[in-house]
Amino acid sequence: MPLRSDWSGHSCPIARSLDVVGDPWVLLVLREALEGLTRFEQFRSALGCADNVLSRRLSGMVEAGLLVRSTYESGNRAREEYLLTEAGTDLLPLLNALALWGERHLPADTGRMEIVHETCGATTTSADTCSACGEPLSSVNTSWRLPRTPGSLTPLAR
Amino acid sequence: MPLRSDWSGHSCPIARSLDVVGDPWVLLVLREALEGLTRFEQFRSALGCADNVLSRRLSGMVEAGLLVRSTYESGNRAREEYLLTEAGTDLLPLLNALALWGERHLPADTGRMEIVHETCGATTTSADTCSACGEPLSSVNTSWRLPRTPGSLTPLAR
Repeated sequence: MPLRSDWSGHSCPIARSLDVVGDPWVLLVLREALEGLTRFEQFRSALGCADNVLSRRLSGMVEAGLLVRSTYESGNRAREEYLLTEAGTDLLPLLNALALWGERHLPADTGRMEIVHETCGATTTSADTCSACGEPLSSVNTSWRLPRTPGSLTPLAR
Repeated sequence: MPLRSDWSGHSCPIARSLDVVGDPWVLLVLREALEGLTRFEQFRSALGCADNVLSRRLSGMVEAGLLVRSTYESGNRAREEYLLTEAGTDLLPLLNALALWGERHLPADTGRMEIVHETCGATTTSADTCSACGEPLSSVNTSWRLPRTPGSLTPLAR
């Protein structure tokens, strides 16, 4: 990964994780992938970033095992898409923790993001466990209510 | 904060949070502050980073409200220390989530980090809620069992 330091060999798992996800673009790509985006052009359009910024992150995320590259047919062309791995979807609690902290300490007047546990329907205040019923959260049972679409729930990629 | 892009005005709280903590050094300084370090020289020694790398992060973290600068007497000199704010200690779930993901997906043979809920004594598998008794975790009731000191618990700064 294109970071300034190499923490991959540290005994501390926080440092080892930061070696992979200690980059804001990586976490924003993960957010978009959880919301269902899979293609280079989709990520670029959603994030408004330069091609080289995005392609470096996607390659690093494939190398780190957060995404897998897959080929699909579009008309008569083979095209690539990027699909989340289990290690990738397992970062949902990290993104939820960022969302919960941001809503608490950096409030905005553009509407709130909510994390909804679909199984019981509750809005959770925990990043990884439904605060109403106690079930562990995963991308399979969790949806996001996003500030830009407050009237609907965005199911997450599995 | 010295990031390439400004996400502070985004409607998404994940992006707003990344504007403040989307930097691996910031999160490593937070880790050390939670473990009780307060002084520039302590952070530099623990992290092995250059003076300018550290001083930029400390200034940015003060500006962002994660740390406050405080003056204390040492002999006949006034010296500065950096103390966690409530917004800073509230990032414990984020660091816990990084630790849990790292232990799961980037295992090392140098010993495991555990997150211990002091109130009930259990090792928790949730970043923000004791997975044994359900109490919300905070720096007041949580300790870390660190790989480098597996025989003892490190209480966290409050």
